[in-house]
Amino acid sequence: MRVTILGCYSATPRTFTNPTAQVLEINNQIFLIDCGEGTQVQLRRHKIKFSRIKHIFISHLHGDHFYGLIGLISTFRLLKRDAPLHIYGPKGIKEAIVLQLKLSNSWTDYPLHFHELTSKESEVIHEDEHVSVTTIPLQHRVYCNGFLFKEKEGDRRLILSKVLNYNIDKAYYRSIKKGKDITLDDGTIVKNEELTEEPNPIKSYAFCSDTKYDEAKVPLIKGVTALYHESTFLESHKHLCETTGHSSAVEAATIAKKAEVGTLVLGHYSTRYGDISLFKEEAETVFDKVEVADDGKVFEF
Amino acid sequence: MRVTILGCYSATPRTFTNPTAQVLEINNQIFLIDCGEGTQVQLRRHKIKFSRIKHIFISHLHGDHFYGLIGLISTFRLLKRDAPLHIYGPKGIKEAIVLQLKLSNSWTDYPLHFHELTSKESEVIHEDEHVSVTTIPLQHRVYCNGFLFKEKEGDRRLILSKVLNYNIDKAYYRSIKKGKDITLDDGTIVKNEELTEEPNPIKSYAFCSDTKYDEAKVPLIKGVTALYHESTFLESHKHLCETTGHSSAVEAATIAKKAEVGTLVLGHYSTRYGDISLFKEEAETVFDKVEVADDGKVFEF
Repeated sequence: MRVTILGCYSATPRTFTNPTAQVLEINNQIFLIDCGEGTQVQLRRHKIKFSRIKHIFISHLHGDHFYGLIGLISTFRLLKRDAPLHIYGPKGIKEAIVLQLKLSNSWTDYPLHFHELTSKESEVIHEDEHVSVTTIPLQHRVYCNGFLFKEKEGDRRLILSKVLNYNIDKAYYRSIKKGKDITLDDGTIVKNEELTEEPNPIKSYAFCSDTKYDEAKVPLIKGVTALYHESTFLESHKHLCETTGHSSAVEAATIAKKAEVGTLVLGHYSTRYGDISLFKEEAETVFDKVEVADDGKVFEF
Repeated sequence: MRVTILGCYSATPRTFTNPTAQVLEINNQIFLIDCGEGTQVQLRRHKIKFSRIKHIFISHLHGDHFYGLIGLISTFRLLKRDAPLHIYGPKGIKEAIVLQLKLSNSWTDYPLHFHELTSKESEVIHEDEHVSVTTIPLQHRVYCNGFLFKEKEGDRRLILSKVLNYNIDKAYYRSIKKGKDITLDDGTIVKNEELTEEPNPIKSYAFCSDTKYDEAKVPLIKGVTALYHESTFLESHKHLCETTGHSSAVEAATIAKKAEVGTLVLGHYSTRYGDISLFKEEAETVFDKVEVADDGKVFEF
């Protein structure tokens, strides 16, 4: 599982920092999460192939999470994309995109599917044989969702020496991986447990931005491999969290601790701060597995 | 008069090139012309003070000329702007911006005035004591205007030695500059021509992008100090001009020649070309005062 941070600063794009966008690669699937202005350039810069992006998840309709979407959609058209594109985001996202396409007289040639979200309860919004994606309702100034990406349980792993020992035909390997027992030519039944090991552990990634401190999401993100949680402010400005609907580094770490996550990745820093290592310092007073996101950083889990 | 090219490539923003946006400084006024994605970052990079921008002119609603506008408007709000902002562009521009502000629940605190254009005839759309701005109807795939910026005629210039010689009180300087004669204490009338020289010559700048070859605009831009004219294609692809509604370098130069402009500035290059000096080479076969725009380049006229 790999996360490439394309942008992780709040509010406005600047010369050397970008608003929120990140690419998650999980179980060989790729997902773009949020799409602030300039995301298409960041994708190019970090050599993410445009054609691999089939699903885009937008947390909320503030500009720093969303204003790069129309440009990306248009660029896909100019590059003669034909694969379908799925957009998941708050109700209204379709109207905004469709209006701008209409005004430019340039409708996409590829199928563009909008999945507009309105529920305040967590729901599964995408599922295939590899991954499921579930919303994480967040508390912000506008309707906002985080997203939980979770691998599907994989096949059991063959113990090759055992399988070869019984001289089992390769044609049966697939059903063994699926957990089936095997009947040998002489009628002996070999139990699956003898031939296989547990599947690889399931990995999961929770993206939570933007949100104020809210423990309601803890059960949803319990034990995830990695949690990206916004930390807009340091303790020196924690009085701004409530009114702006954001979290401090300490609050993000408190959620991570309560949810017993594997690693906490901090981001969505207010652009008032020069030194983002302070976020890690403050978060580590509460939780000890903390990473700081920065534009261009790649995390492997 | 100074033009700062923030972006001058067509179609999509890329790692090292930007879509159309430029800043014109004329007679101490500043105008932003077009606003492709990433324009706000380009403004920061080139140290154009956001607060100086009071008028933004959008030629047409294709993304590479327009998708950076909503982000810039939002950033102005975040920076607590209070000065009014005037936006000039095709009908529909207001709906697109207002919808996105509404969706993000963040209306601007500063006055935002839209001047929507629908006329196919040239018209004066802005005028103050320093500058007038007139539309130049262009022929593109969607409704599109160029813009002609023209200094107002300045005051006549005092010949200080003469004025001092007549011992004229400073209180009269302003009316002398405005062209008035002066009656001395002894009743002698001194003609204005004796005290002043002609005003500085009027400068003017015509922005013409995007457009196919069209001589109809020649009378409008006759004799301008500088003409920015799109040249999307080289001769090798001139067959694409008609269908895409664009011009070649040779066509841009032909317009410049017919309009007897001071300098032709080429731009809006198709991103298929690696070497933009070829545009200058081809244009110079027709017209000899050619400059090639490039991102970050500053022209003084």
